[in-house]
Amino acid sequence: MKGLFITLEGPDGSGKSTIIKLISDYLRNKGIDFIVTREPGGTQIGEEIRHIVLDEKNINMGRETEALLYAASRAQHIHEKIRPSLEEGKLVICDRFLLSSLAYQGVGRGLGIKEVKAINDFGIKGLNPDLILFFHIDPEVTLSRKFLEDSPDRLEREGNEFHKKVYEGYMELLKLYPENIKIIDATKTIEEVLEESIQKIEELLTKKGE
Amino acid sequence: MKGLFITLEGPDGSGKSTIIKLISDYLRNKGIDFIVTREPGGTQIGEEIRHIVLDEKNINMGRETEALLYAASRAQHIHEKIRPSLEEGKLVICDRFLLSSLAYQGVGRGLGIKEVKAINDFGIKGLNPDLILFFHIDPEVTLSRKFLEDSPDRLEREGNEFHKKVYEGYMELLKLYPENIKIIDATKTIEEVLEESIQKIEELLTKKGE
Repeated sequence: MKGLFITLEGPDGSGKSTIIKLISDYLRNKGIDFIVTREPGGTQIGEEIRHIVLDEKNINMGRETEALLYAASRAQHIHEKIRPSLEEGKLVICDRFLLSSLAYQGVGRGLGIKEVKAINDFGIKGLNPDLILFFHIDPEVTLSRKFLEDSPDRLEREGNEFHKKVYEGYMELLKLYPENIKIIDATKTIEEVLEESIQKIEELLTKKGE
Repeated sequence: MKGLFITLEGPDGSGKSTIIKLISDYLRNKGIDFIVTREPGGTQIGEEIRHIVLDEKNINMGRETEALLYAASRAQHIHEKIRPSLEEGKLVICDRFLLSSLAYQGVGRGLGIKEVKAINDFGIKGLNPDLILFFHIDPEVTLSRKFLEDSPDRLEREGNEFHKKVYEGYMELLKLYPENIKIIDATKTIEEVLEESIQKIEELLTKKGE
């Protein structure tokens, strides 16, 4: 692969979306050829799947269904967007990837990390991120942030217990799959979080250039 | 499980839909508590997934995406409809189930029978049909039948080579998983096919009643 693949992970409300916009500004100013994308979604088919998963009407969705839909959306994302962009030599920045499924569905929903990884590996086919920026923040903080929002989707409506399990899942994953993960303290100011994120990206770009 | 689970399998154009209607008439007349359902679909969420899979606009759908969407639809179908109906003691008749995915995606798309079975087992969780009626018909015959139809969907538009591979896949599956499979010669008249199907169902009902 000629390009570089960077994913951002972390609990809901860890500020990923804000930071991604600022990282984009930085990369644009530097003249780097990049794309920003997100999961679930990122393609037309993926957005249609995302709509089904997050639709609050679908309260009777089984946890296995949910996990398979996320895996399907990811498979299409890789097939149609991520892999072709990497082959063109682009830097690909993706908001959420495999670790989110392992934390939310594997641990949060209790489906098992190994089991959820297996259905995802079917579509991922060995494509691993070159860098995973993990935005670390305590669930107590993120949950209070979320309560300020107007229209939470089906997953955001889940109770505190669910989000605490997801957090514990992430902590377990950091130990299980430490490869290429850099932990960012997301309780710091936006400026500090951005600076640290850019530093990790620059380190990767330098390594790639060598 | 108190109920009985019967699935109908076979290539496109093997006449399953026609026979299912006639089987339904027969069961209704006998006063048997049954439901008829189909894959992909069978639930609101499943129908939404079915729409994505069969939409001819989605020509760039990856084969892994397709297989995962079928598995997701099946997981929801089991969770929301099949398992609850079986627990209520109903006879459940389902147009297509696991074998279709193994033949179409595993062999037709070349994803591998074992690999496609694994992502499906994640949602099936050990629920196996008590009886599989396999409608056996040569692809040469079914393909000529299909050409007479007006608006084929995305899968039906696939070329003859694909449908021949699916047929070969089914032949392989009959050897791999012969358990509970009864082969029906679908080249016979509708009356004969119906009679044979009902005979197999009656045998199962008698066995269950004993």
